[in-house]
Amino acid sequence: MKDSAALKRENKIQIRRLLRSGKSYTKQQIALQTGLSVASCNTYLNEMETTGEVTGEKQKLHEVGRNAMVYTLNEDFESILCLYFALIQGVKSVTAAVLSPTGRILHQQVRRFDPLDAAAIEQESAAAFRLFPNISQVIVGTPSIAENGVIRHSDIPELENVPLKTMLETKFRRPVFLANDMHYKVYGYYRQEQISDKIVTLVNYPSGVLPGTATVHKGTLLTGRNLFAGMVGFLDYGMSLEQQIQMLHRPAAEPLIIQASIALISILNPHLLLFTGDLLLESDLERIRAACRTCIPEEYMPDFAFIPSTDQYYLMGMYWKAMDIKDETASYSPKNAAGKL
Amino acid sequence: MKDSAALKRENKIQIRRLLRSGKSYTKQQIALQTGLSVASCNTYLNEMETTGEVTGEKQKLHEVGRNAMVYTLNEDFESILCLYFALIQGVKSVTAAVLSPTGRILHQQVRRFDPLDAAAIEQESAAAFRLFPNISQVIVGTPSIAENGVIRHSDIPELENVPLKTMLETKFRRPVFLANDMHYKVYGYYRQEQISDKIVTLVNYPSGVLPGTATVHKGTLLTGRNLFAGMVGFLDYGMSLEQQIQMLHRPAAEPLIIQASIALISILNPHLLLFTGDLLLESDLERIRAACRTCIPEEYMPDFAFIPSTDQYYLMGMYWKAMDIKDETASYSPKNAAGKL
Repeated sequence: MKDSAALKRENKIQIRRLLRSGKSYTKQQIALQTGLSVASCNTYLNEMETTGEVTGEKQKLHEVGRNAMVYTLNEDFESILCLYFALIQGVKSVTAAVLSPTGRILHQQVRRFDPLDAAAIEQESAAAFRLFPNISQVIVGTPSIAENGVIRHSDIPELENVPLKTMLETKFRRPVFLANDMHYKVYGYYRQEQISDKIVTLVNYPSGVLPGTATVHKGTLLTGRNLFAGMVGFLDYGMSLEQQIQMLHRPAAEPLIIQASIALISILNPHLLLFTGDLLLESDLERIRAACRTCIPEEYMPDFAFIPSTDQYYLMGMYWKAMDIKDETASYSPKNAAGKL
Repeated sequence: MKDSAALKRENKIQIRRLLRSGKSYTKQQIALQTGLSVASCNTYLNEMETTGEVTGEKQKLHEVGRNAMVYTLNEDFESILCLYFALIQGVKSVTAAVLSPTGRILHQQVRRFDPLDAAAIEQESAAAFRLFPNISQVIVGTPSIAENGVIRHSDIPELENVPLKTMLETKFRRPVFLANDMHYKVYGYYRQEQISDKIVTLVNYPSGVLPGTATVHKGTLLTGRNLFAGMVGFLDYGMSLEQQIQMLHRPAAEPLIIQASIALISILNPHLLLFTGDLLLESDLERIRAACRTCIPEEYMPDFAFIPSTDQYYLMGMYWKAMDIKDETASYSPKNAAGKL
């Protein structure tokens, strides 16, 4: 059901998506790359200049050419607060990063807390809001299940059952979106590597805590019914969860990793298993792959790759999620704001 | 990048989707249900009447009302040939069904063949084309992997590596789409039950052959990289494929079914596991569910259900796939015809 108002919003999204590269474009270049007419681009760009979202300035394009208007996304129009917290080898920390509309990191602050409770997260948010009053969205990542904006099954007990979304929305009056860290990371990977037609599973084996995986299937993030999808720590390894956690060190964990990999391949048939986590070394992959081959025919084996850190993808996943929410909000109604990752 | 021609095609798809219910609608009703203007509906319906896709006729709407034009999809405009073959308890058969544009079954013929080779399928297709020269698409289902239109890993050896898509397209000069039977069945279930926001996994355990599963994730069919997704027969059961096949009878298979169910739940987190196949009885499900609970917390357990036959969903999945291809072809270019299931 497309009416002309919906069409106009979608066309503006096209322009916004192009400008998110951070580059400057003339009206003609924007028309060429979006497929819109120059006249439509003119209308939209004027509107976006009026609201302050876009800046236009005269620029000499060639040495002896005449001046032309070039348009750029206004980096000061709004910013996105990305918050995440972690428990790594006993150390609890909150990271607060502020990103520009083109995904540039304007500010980043990591601070230790113990206890790491709701007050700590509120404090770090308030500090970011003081520096950047133009924050338009808050995106939060948690190394736990994030069901309906509430933290569940957290390794950080003082955050268990904290309704973080509602709490931060009440305090700061901005839309807040909360999701599991693995979901952002695999989504960031998918957006940065531009693999929209592929299936990629990110497999995280940190030592001493349950592993987690997350999959993007041709652009769709597989979250499951209540965000449990990919929790391979709950496969049947013939032992209790406690026994499993005790085995999650090198080299005892390898049979568990192999069993989980075989299950992921036969159920998801991905192009790539992307391993990470301090339980694994890059040199393990060849052995794990060979072991998977005892069950999986070679033609259905995915590529295996290792990345030592997923940090770069974490923030990018949060940035792209914020952009998706912005586009969805523009497409439908403001009520849709904090969508589903 | 939406231009007005693309918009027009999408709007026509909206009208077509409404009329696929098989009901008759006035222009005003169509406008109301699609959100399009009455003037636009008028233009589109006139065009669709000219091509013969839609029929309009004057009808008295109320006892004493005046006559109004009502529009219906023309059931004779085109038809869809659905072909599938099976090997069930040693019997090989080909089913050929012809469906109308609203999904009504116009003709259905099941015939035994031995050998069941490419010539048998061609013969059954030719018979259908003689009866229905207006067949516009051929949709084929195979109980095997269907990679790029070629049959792979078939239980029917004489069909192994037959390039069925190319063969039938060359012979009948209509677009042919080939996919795995489970994919159609779960897709048919999803369309018939209208569960676009849910995740449903169909789990098929026939006796004596490897099990198969297929999942729709909020409207997206999870096919995997090369259509291997859901092949839980390749999980690590600590035995060879041959040993596994020998265990696929009652009650020996139950531990295998439990292990596969746990893997499906932890990796996909579905709303529903829908079991079928002659290896299972409805009364088994409670026991299987209880066994899954030893690994999976209750809050992440899906519903368990059993259907004795998936036949009704098979043909409906093929019909809806044909409609998707028709819509995609209209939206983009005719080259996209035989898309990806």
